[in-house]
Amino acid sequence: MLDTAREPRRLKSYVLGDWRAGEGAGKPLAHAATGETVAFIGSDGLDFKGALDWGREVGGPALRKLTIHQRALMLKEIGIRLMEMKDAFYDENYATGATRKDGWIDIDGGIGTMLTFASKARRELPNTRVLTDGAVEPLSRDGSFSAQHILTPLQGVAIHINAFNFPVWGMLEKIAPSLIAGVPCLVKPASQTAYLTELVVRRMLEMEILPAGALQLVCGGVGDMLDHVTGQDIVTFTGSASTGQMLRSHPAVIANSTRFTMEADSLNAAILGADAGPGTPEFDLFVKEVVREMTVKAGQKCTAIRRVLVPREHEQAVIEALSARLGQTPVGLPDDENVRMSALASLKDRDSVRDKIRALQAEAEIVSGNPDEVNLVSGDAETGAFLSPVLLRCDNPMGATAVHEVEAFGPVATVMAYGDADEAVALARKGKGSLVSSLFTDEPAVAEEIILGLAPWHGRVLIGNRASAKSSTGHGSPLAPLVHGGPGRAGGGEEMGGMRGVKHFMQRTAVQGAPGLLSAVTGQWIDGAPVRSDRHPFRKSLAELRIGDQIITAAREVTEEDVEHFAHFTGDTFYAHMDSEAAKANPFFDDRVAHGYLIASFAAGLFVDPAPGPVLANYGVDNLRFLTPVYFGDSLKVRLTCKEINPRENADHGEVRWDCRVTNQDDEVVAQYDVLTMVAKTWPLPAEG
Amino acid sequence: MLDTAREPRRLKSYVLGDWRAGEGAGKPLAHAATGETVAFIGSDGLDFKGALDWGREVGGPALRKLTIHQRALMLKEIGIRLMEMKDAFYDENYATGATRKDGWIDIDGGIGTMLTFASKARRELPNTRVLTDGAVEPLSRDGSFSAQHILTPLQGVAIHINAFNFPVWGMLEKIAPSLIAGVPCLVKPASQTAYLTELVVRRMLEMEILPAGALQLVCGGVGDMLDHVTGQDIVTFTGSASTGQMLRSHPAVIANSTRFTMEADSLNAAILGADAGPGTPEFDLFVKEVVREMTVKAGQKCTAIRRVLVPREHEQAVIEALSARLGQTPVGLPDDENVRMSALASLKDRDSVRDKIRALQAEAEIVSGNPDEVNLVSGDAETGAFLSPVLLRCDNPMGATAVHEVEAFGPVATVMAYGDADEAVALARKGKGSLVSSLFTDEPAVAEEIILGLAPWHGRVLIGNRASAKSSTGHGSPLAPLVHGGPGRAGGGEEMGGMRGVKHFMQRTAVQGAPGLLSAVTGQWIDGAPVRSDRHPFRKSLAELRIGDQIITAAREVTEEDVEHFAHFTGDTFYAHMDSEAAKANPFFDDRVAHGYLIASFAAGLFVDPAPGPVLANYGVDNLRFLTPVYFGDSLKVRLTCKEINPRENADHGEVRWDCRVTNQDDEVVAQYDVLTMVAKTWPLPAEG
Repeated sequence: MLDTAREPRRLKSYVLGDWRAGEGAGKPLAHAATGETVAFIGSDGLDFKGALDWGREVGGPALRKLTIHQRALMLKEIGIRLMEMKDAFYDENYATGATRKDGWIDIDGGIGTMLTFASKARRELPNTRVLTDGAVEPLSRDGSFSAQHILTPLQGVAIHINAFNFPVWGMLEKIAPSLIAGVPCLVKPASQTAYLTELVVRRMLEMEILPAGALQLVCGGVGDMLDHVTGQDIVTFTGSASTGQMLRSHPAVIANSTRFTMEADSLNAAILGADAGPGTPEFDLFVKEVVREMTVKAGQKCTAIRRVLVPREHEQAVIEALSARLGQTPVGLPDDENVRMSALASLKDRDSVRDKIRALQAEAEIVSGNPDEVNLVSGDAETGAFLSPVLLRCDNPMGATAVHEVEAFGPVATVMAYGDADEAVALARKGKGSLVSSLFTDEPAVAEEIILGLAPWHGRVLIGNRASAKSSTGHGSPLAPLVHGGPGRAGGGEEMGGMRGVKHFMQRTAVQGAPGLLSAVTGQWIDGAPVRSDRHPFRKSLAELRIGDQIITAAREVTEEDVEHFAHFTGDTFYAHMDSEAAKANPFFDDRVAHGYLIASFAAGLFVDPAPGPVLANYGVDNLRFLTPVYFGDSLKVRLTCKEINPRENADHGEVRWDCRVTNQDDEVVAQYDVLTMVAKTWPLPAEG
Repeated sequence: MLDTAREPRRLKSYVLGDWRAGEGAGKPLAHAATGETVAFIGSDGLDFKGALDWGREVGGPALRKLTIHQRALMLKEIGIRLMEMKDAFYDENYATGATRKDGWIDIDGGIGTMLTFASKARRELPNTRVLTDGAVEPLSRDGSFSAQHILTPLQGVAIHINAFNFPVWGMLEKIAPSLIAGVPCLVKPASQTAYLTELVVRRMLEMEILPAGALQLVCGGVGDMLDHVTGQDIVTFTGSASTGQMLRSHPAVIANSTRFTMEADSLNAAILGADAGPGTPEFDLFVKEVVREMTVKAGQKCTAIRRVLVPREHEQAVIEALSARLGQTPVGLPDDENVRMSALASLKDRDSVRDKIRALQAEAEIVSGNPDEVNLVSGDAETGAFLSPVLLRCDNPMGATAVHEVEAFGPVATVMAYGDADEAVALARKGKGSLVSSLFTDEPAVAEEIILGLAPWHGRVLIGNRASAKSSTGHGSPLAPLVHGGPGRAGGGEEMGGMRGVKHFMQRTAVQGAPGLLSAVTGQWIDGAPVRSDRHPFRKSLAELRIGDQIITAAREVTEEDVEHFAHFTGDTFYAHMDSEAAKANPFFDDRVAHGYLIASFAAGLFVDPAPGPVLANYGVDNLRFLTPVYFGDSLKVRLTCKEINPRENADHGEVRWDCRVTNQDDEVVAQYDVLTMVAKTWPLPAEG
C-alpha cells in the first residue's frame, strides 16, 4: 500500500562534497496517482560554478589516477549493492506513477545497464588509463615516422540533464560510461521525479566507493551552470526537443564547442510487414508490442510507439485487435496488483496529452478510448493523472503532418495504412528522425528493404518475428551494448552503444612521431621502438616483463618433406601445397607453397621457450596475414616482441599481446600477427588459497 | 610571370545540373600580390533550396546505387586526372598570394588526400553499400536474438563551407570522404579565392565521372540555403570561430539536429622539450619548424604555430635563432623564384593582422620584424598584401590572455617561457583547445608527460626528434589517415582520420532481430542465420557462392601421439603439451593439452577440399580464440560457413571470409575464428590476356 502517512522531505543537492538544500522551502512535488505532496525541491543559491570546478579539480584527477578496469570494478560493486537494496527504490517509485512492472525498466534496467558497462569494459577495453584507437598508421617508408590515435578522458565534468520518466536508468546509463571513461559527473534529474534519483545517489555515496568529486547531484534548477561550461565539459540532455534546442544553442555551449548530446522524444513507428497478416505469429506479436508500448509507464517513454503503420488490407484487423486489448487495460493505483497501467507523472502531463490528442484529431479520428474519461480499478481521477489509452486512425497519412510531428507523451498512438514497402518507409521518415522503429515480418526480403530504408533516419531498429518472439527485448528497450539516440527530431545524439559510449567522453587525438617516442606515449610497443633482448621473454613474469622485450629466433628451413609430411599428418592436401602444375596456374603462386598453418606452427616451435614458467597459455591469435608465399627451401625466422601488457585486477595473471613477425631468408615478411597469451603476475604462482 | 593581361572572369555556380551566374556583375576579387581584379563573384538569385533538393533527389540515389569501392575508384580516376592538369591550378593559385611551394600543400596535398581516401577505402572497407560497425552483439542465450550496428549513407547533402586559404585541399579533403560514404556534396568556397576552386570543379565535372547531382558548387553567398537543411544533411565549416558559431546556432541547424562539423583556427603551440637545448638536433628542428609554420602561406594556415613555448633557460637562444632566420626571409611576388614568403590573401587580411599584433602588444613585445614595414624583393607593398614576419615575446604568459586567445592570422607568433613540463602543458591548454601542437624532444619520458597532458585539448599532436627529422610530415600538415579538428576553440570537429572520416557522413543504426533476418539486412552471415549445405563451398566460384554456404566436417580424434608428434615436428614442446605435472599446475588446464596451432591445422585438414578450384589462397586468419582446452582423446569437428563476400572491382577474384568453429565431442566450442581466402569470380579462371 501507498505510504501516505510519510512526511514529504526536502530534497538536497550533493555539490562540493556536501549535501546542501537550496534556499527557501522548495517547490512541492505531487504524487502522480494521489496528488499528495511527496517532496520539496529547489537549488536556488547553490554555487554552480563551484560545483563544476569541484568536479574538474577533485573528481577528475582522482578518477584519472585509476585504470579503466579499476573504475569498472567500482561500478560493479556499486551495481551489486544497489541491486540488493532495490526494493526501497521500487517503493519510492510508486509516487512517480510507475507500477512494479514499469519500475523494472527503470530500476533493474538501470542497475543492469551499469553492470553491463562494468563487465563489458573489463572484457573489451584494456586495463589502462589511455586507450588507443585504430591501427598504427605508418607515415614514412623507412618506418621512422608513424602515428597512432589515442583516447584520453576529457578533463571537465559530464553534466547529465535527465528526463522525469526514468529517474534511475536515465542517471545510471549516463554515469556508467562517463565514470569508466574517467570523467566526473554532475547529475541533474528532472524535478518531477527527482526524489527517486536523490535516494539512489544517496545510497551510492554512502557506499564510499567513488572518489570524492566523481559524482554530484543537483535537485532543482541548474542556475547559471551552463554559463561556465568549457570545451572540456560534456552536456548530455534527455527530454523535450524544445528544452534541448535551448540548451544546445546556449551561448557558452556554442562558443566553447562544448560536446552536447541530445536525446529527444520522437514519433517512433512500428510497422507490420505485408506478409504478417492476421493469423500469423508476427501479427500477434505486433499487436502485443503496440499495446505494451502504449501502456508501459502510461506511454511516457521516449521510445514508445506513436505511429502504427500497417498494410492497408490489414488496417481494420489491426484496429480491432488493438482496440480489444486496449479497452481491457485495468487502470489504477501504481501499487495495485490488478493494475496494468497507472497514472501519468503529473496532472500537467495529462492536460498536455489531452491537448495533443485534440491536435491529432485534426487529421485523425479516435477509434478506441476516450481522453476525457477513464474507468479506474483504484484511485481517483480527480487527484491522480489517470488517462485511458487512446488509439487514433489517420485516413491520409502521406498528406498529414500533425500525426508525424505532434507527440502526445502518453498512452496514445495513431494507426496509418500504407500501400507498399516504399510507402511504409516514406511514412516512417515523415517523423524526421526517430530513436527507434520496429518491423514485424518473417520475410528476409521485407526486412532487408524496409530496414535499410529506415536506417538513415534511426538510431535503432528492431525486427520482430516468430523466431525471436521469446527472446526479443522489445521495441522500447534501449540496451547497453546498442546505440541509443537518433538523428533529426530525436536529437542527433548517440549514447551507450557499448564501449562507443565510453569513448564519447574521451578526446581522440592523433599522435605522430618516431616509434620510440610514440610507444612511450601509448604504452604499446610499436615496430621501430626500442627493444630489449636479454633473457627469453617467456621466462619473465608480469613483474619483470616490459613492452619491447624481444626474442629473435634461429632460422629453420621449410623443405618439401616438411610440407608433404604436414599435409598428410593434418589432412590438408590443398592443391597449392601438393600440385606444382595447379599451384603455378594460381594467380598468387609460382609453385607449391607451404601451408599457412605450417608457417605459424613452425614459428611457435621457434619462439616458444618450453620449460614451465610464467607464460600460462596461448589463448588466441589476432590479425594473422600471410604476406609472402613460402616455397620449398625457404628459411624462416621469427621476431617476437612484447607489445601490450594488461594485468587483470582480480587474478594472478594478465594478458600479454606479442607482435610476431616471420621473415624469410630475404628478410621479406612472410607472416605477421599478434600472439595472445596469459602470463603470471609473479613466478612461481602463489599457492592456491 | 603573372598573366596580368588576362581578363577577369565572372565566376559561376554549378547547381541543379547547370553552370549559372548569379544576378548582376558580381563583386570583384583582387589579386593578393598585385591588387588587380582577378574575377567577379556573386550568387544572388540562385535557387538554393532547389540545389539541396537536386543533391538529395538526383545525386544521392545515384551515389547510393554504387558500392563503396566503385565510388572510391571514381575518385581515384578523378585524382589521377587532376594531378595531370595541376600546372594550370598552380598558375591560378599565384593570384591567391601562394608561392609554388605554398601551392604544393593545397594542390598536390589536396589531390593526394583524395587519392589516399580512394585507396584506403578499397583496402580498409568492404565493397558493399552498407557497412557493419563492430561485432555482432548476442542478446539472448539461445542465439535467437542478436544485434549488429550498421552504417548507411545519410540521405541529404553535405554542405561544405570552406576557408579561403586552401581553395583546393579544403574542398577535396571534404568531398572525398563524403562521396565515398555515398553522400552528394555542395561546396561553397570562401569568395576571396573561389576562382581556383571553381576551376578545379569545372575540370572535375568535365571528366563526367561523377553521377549527376553528386557535386554542386556555389560561388558567392549561400543565401537562404541553411534555412532548408534537415536532419539528413551535414554542414561542415572551416574558417573563423565567429562565423562558425553563427552557423552552428542557425535555427534550422539547431531545430533539425543537423550534423555540424566545425574546424576553426586555433592558437596552436610548439613546445621545445627541456632536453632540447641549443646544439641538439631537436633545437634546430624546432627553430626550422617554427619559421616554416610562420612563413608558409604567410602564416595563413589554421594549423600554423602561434605560440612558441620554450624552457626559460633557452628562451633567449630560441629568440635569437628565430629572429636570424625570420629576418632573412625574402618577401615578394608569389611567382618570383627568389621569394620564400608572398602576400597575405588580401589587404583587408593585412589590416586585420596588424590590428591583432597591436592587441598582442598589450602583453608582449615585438622582438623581430616590423608590422608596418616590409622589404620586398619584388612587388609593391601598396597594392599587394605583403607583411614582414613578426615575432613577439610575452614576459608573463601564465598571467596573460591575449597571447592565448587573439589570433593574428598571418606570419606572427609569440615566444613564451615555461618552467617545468606542467607549466608547458598549462600554457598550451590556455589556448582552450587547438587543432595541433608539436613537441620537440628526444626523451621518451618528456614525450609521455607532455603529450598525455596535451591530448585532451588537441586533435593532433606531433613529436619532432632526430629520428624522424627526415621523414616527419611536420606540424602544419593534416594528413588523410589522421583526425583533423580539435576541441574547444578549434571548433570541436573531427574530419578525415582515415575511414573514420567516411563514417562521419553515415548514420549508425543498431539493428536487432533474429539472425536470419539480421543477416538479410547486413549481407553478412551471422550464427543462427540460414545455411546451405549442398556442394562443398570450396567448389563454388563467387558466381555461385552465397553467404550461409556451409560444410560440417567429419570428426577427428586428437591423440597423445598426435600431440607428441606435432611437438617434435614443429619444435613447440611447451610444457602444457608435454608435461602432465606442469600442465596440472597451470590454472587453465587439468592435464596436457593439444597445441592451439595443432587444432587450427587439423581443422584445415578437415574443412579443406583439396582439388584445384576457385579457392585460390588462404591469406589470413582473424580473431582466433582458443576457448576450451583439448585433451587427449577429444574428438574435433569443424563447421565452416561463408560469412562475407567482397568481389574486387578490378580483378578476377574477391575476398571471402569464413566463419570457422571447431567443437569437441561435447559440442563445446574449442576454437572460433575467421578464415580469410581469395576466391575466383568464375571457375576456371579466364585465360591470361
